[in-house]
Amino acid sequence: MTEALISQAPGNFNDSNAVPSGPEKGSTTTPAEVEAAVHAIADRSRQAARQMSGANRALKDSGLRAIGAALLDRKEQILAANAKDVAAGKANGTSAALLDRLTLSDARITGLVDALENLANLPDPVGNVVRGQTLPNGLRLRQVNVPLGVVAAIYEARPNVTVDIAGLALKSGNAVILRGGTAAAFTNEALVQILREALDSVGLPADAVQTVDQYGREGANALMRARGRVDVLIPRGGRDLIQSVVLNAAVPVIETGEGNVHIFIDESASEEMAVEILLNSKTQRPSVCNTVETLLVHSRSTVLPAVAAALRGAGVTLHADERIRAALPSSIETEPATDEDWGTEYMDLDLAVAMVDSLDDAVKHIRTWSTGHTEAILTNNLANAERFIAEVDSAAVIVNASTRFTDGGELGLGAEVGISTQKLHARGPMGLTELTTTKWIVQGEGQVRG
Amino acid sequence: MTEALISQAPGNFNDSNAVPSGPEKGSTTTPAEVEAAVHAIADRSRQAARQMSGANRALKDSGLRAIGAALLDRKEQILAANAKDVAAGKANGTSAALLDRLTLSDARITGLVDALENLANLPDPVGNVVRGQTLPNGLRLRQVNVPLGVVAAIYEARPNVTVDIAGLALKSGNAVILRGGTAAAFTNEALVQILREALDSVGLPADAVQTVDQYGREGANALMRARGRVDVLIPRGGRDLIQSVVLNAAVPVIETGEGNVHIFIDESASEEMAVEILLNSKTQRPSVCNTVETLLVHSRSTVLPAVAAALRGAGVTLHADERIRAALPSSIETEPATDEDWGTEYMDLDLAVAMVDSLDDAVKHIRTWSTGHTEAILTNNLANAERFIAEVDSAAVIVNASTRFTDGGELGLGAEVGISTQKLHARGPMGLTELTTTKWIVQGEGQVRG
Repeated sequence: MTEALISQAPGNFNDSNAVPSGPEKGSTTTPAEVEAAVHAIADRSRQAARQMSGANRALKDSGLRAIGAALLDRKEQILAANAKDVAAGKANGTSAALLDRLTLSDARITGLVDALENLANLPDPVGNVVRGQTLPNGLRLRQVNVPLGVVAAIYEARPNVTVDIAGLALKSGNAVILRGGTAAAFTNEALVQILREALDSVGLPADAVQTVDQYGREGANALMRARGRVDVLIPRGGRDLIQSVVLNAAVPVIETGEGNVHIFIDESASEEMAVEILLNSKTQRPSVCNTVETLLVHSRSTVLPAVAAALRGAGVTLHADERIRAALPSSIETEPATDEDWGTEYMDLDLAVAMVDSLDDAVKHIRTWSTGHTEAILTNNLANAERFIAEVDSAAVIVNASTRFTDGGELGLGAEVGISTQKLHARGPMGLTELTTTKWIVQGEGQVRG
Repeated sequence: MTEALISQAPGNFNDSNAVPSGPEKGSTTTPAEVEAAVHAIADRSRQAARQMSGANRALKDSGLRAIGAALLDRKEQILAANAKDVAAGKANGTSAALLDRLTLSDARITGLVDALENLANLPDPVGNVVRGQTLPNGLRLRQVNVPLGVVAAIYEARPNVTVDIAGLALKSGNAVILRGGTAAAFTNEALVQILREALDSVGLPADAVQTVDQYGREGANALMRARGRVDVLIPRGGRDLIQSVVLNAAVPVIETGEGNVHIFIDESASEEMAVEILLNSKTQRPSVCNTVETLLVHSRSTVLPAVAAALRGAGVTLHADERIRAALPSSIETEPATDEDWGTEYMDLDLAVAMVDSLDDAVKHIRTWSTGHTEAILTNNLANAERFIAEVDSAAVIVNASTRFTDGGELGLGAEVGISTQKLHARGPMGLTELTTTKWIVQGEGQVRG
């Protein structure tokens, strides 16, 4: 799941400090020189991608396990580098929330190692036959999954993404170029070095993991412009980062994350189910993209007081429209909602609440404000459930369950690259297969077209 | 199959003449006004897309057949409009090749009607369940194909594309916004009017087919920038058009067409097969993207003289490197090849020919010059066939058959939107399914996340 991160666009990166002492540090200065250096990195990445593409599952899995072992072996080195980033962050007045995301610990490193082991245990997406047939003229035809090639990632402040995205890219047979941001520069430098050495130790190309962090903001820009050299760019982070990448990139981008998630309580929804699902959707992990942000309540539903009381009891601030405020007893505290609330992804213990008179009105509200991530209906009315499924155009549409299920792990995809809110290539939770493309293989014995 | 068209980028459109007298003609002039008008068109398209999304196959097929019937009924109107465009083209000194593509005839209109009938007979891609399962917690999960929504197309000079792309978009449940170019303005205006009336006659929304032709070049630009309003933009035409759209569009683009296609004749390929496949791949229809453009011949192959003689006999100009020229008898005429030849998509009776000493050298040449469309190997060596399949990173890799098979119809996909040379979303021949996205549908009875 993509968590909300610092809203810092690549154009705003502050690269005046903590640039790692990479081998090429200081050797390039102009944008043209940075571009040439990033192109050279991408060309090495292309070479490495060809080797990764031909690596079988056993070899790739041994690489993932070697990385896991190296992370444990060299934990002290990682934690020391991380301490430098955290100290620099504190000195710069970085917020507590960001410092928390920036900080690695024994437990977090163990979590990364466990995730790598989980990845190693998943089937290889490469070579999977999507479809195939023998044509009337005898041609044997199959469409198979093959790696995308060179995968780039731009992210912020969370050094665990370095390991996470590298592992996903390697398992799917790709090479990866990382841009991790200045705040985590020392940590990322140590991690990339460890990853490269671990790959090399099992006979995989070290250049399958590279970074452009040493080139700062210009490096990120060059990566976004490296058309033909980068097959896909995945931004991971807050809204501003993702929007900046989407608008500025000349390479193909997979957009992830933004979730202004709605739940509609229909007239027929039971109180018990509504209370339980709202509590889970809002409070189980409020900082992630599949948490509910707006609740729409049918005006003839009777569950509102119980749901509102339960949410208040769990510490949720309710930003409610006039009709909701009028319908609730004065003992339940609310804030008046404005249009800004309908458009806000709080990612916190806040919930916008509006009253609607019909399913149509609920769908209309959702069409106006949704980011197309996840919407749910709570209902016992079959026709309404079917209409909601058909009329709501989001990556995931849920009937009578928590919105927190929009997650690759929960939906049985194994590892998750992120949650795509775009319509091309991947929509919703993205597994390893979404880091592949396909190739048509046609085999004959001399067939020509008539 | 995408044919090579006039290399005229949207930025170069000449809109000084033949602008159709649409209802909004002349009412807008500034780019901002055009943008507002195009946004209004896109918003009507979104409304229509919602209706199309809910239309079942029977209704959509009746719409396609109504369009076919109307094209026949109103053939005289279409041909009269087309005659105006052709006359304007002649007056402007338009090339014979372009005039041919611009010209409609009884036979071409019948061809369009047949294609619509073929579309109507294909299965509906919408609602197809891609995958699904019941999770351990009882949640029922399925991922289904749903329409993309608003599909835009920018193309040039070929009015048949107006009917073709509208039919494909409608069958897959989308609404379409067309930009057909000034050269075919009268024809496209007549066709769009007929399509809209036919849709309306069966109860489908007329706004499912709209055009921005009345806004000229600025209309095309506004369409490319309509982020969030246009779900996918498909450029159809020559290299310059496609590159211009890819570089300038802020909306998602599916890139089609460019095919610098290679055939490698390995040492073990038989002469008979090599002659037959080269003749078919080069001469059956040289103006299309799956025709072969470069032949690579293993230096130990003995088939070169026979292949070269056959191609010359069929009128093919051979642009050959020094080693090929030295190996051929003087009776076989060749032109000296330059680097430009390796990079050229001739789309004519021209073929670049180079000698290579190994499969590795052939793959290296292909990696340097290929556009990633289609490459073929002719061989009787199993290990070499497998290596070629694994190491060549193209949308289609063919063993011992004509490159002309990279075609949606030939590969059993039914109708074809185009041939994608990109890696995201669709790669190779694109059928109706590639005009859809997916939606996850999750159904439970109160499940929450633990």
